[in-house]
Amino acid sequence: MKTITLDVKGMTCGHCKSAVNGALTEIDGIDRVEVNLETGKVEVTYDENKIDQAKMKDAIEEQGYDVA
Amino acid sequence: MKTITLDVKGMTCGHCKSAVNGALTEIDGIDRVEVNLETGKVEVTYDENKIDQAKMKDAIEEQGYDVA
Repeated sequence: MKTITLDVKGMTCGHCKSAVNGALTEIDGIDRVEVNLETGKVEVTYDENKIDQAKMKDAIEEQGYDVA
Repeated sequence: MKTITLDVKGMTCGHCKSAVNGALTEIDGIDRVEVNLETGKVEVTYDENKIDQAKMKDAIEEQGYDVA
């Protein structure tokens, strides 16, 4: 397991938080997601053998947010 | 049918718009809802014999927004 912090732009409310959290949590290989709405930081703990950062980025962008 | 415009505070994104729109649309007696995210104005066309403004206000507040 590895933990990284992503910088996500555009999350404004609890719905946004849920959308990002939900999109990441449902990916196989992601163990834990912690979204901080105030800072835009999203902490993800994941299995490096199952997924990579590009897939997380795609999932977040699909919800309409940018990943720095 | 009557059309009124409500001032709703706290809507920040498309999810908020959908939440308010959905909560109002499902009320019996409401015919049309138009949410303007930029201005916070929510235009509602409704049947005065079926519902009143207090019920709309309640439905919006239940979603976590304030009605001025």
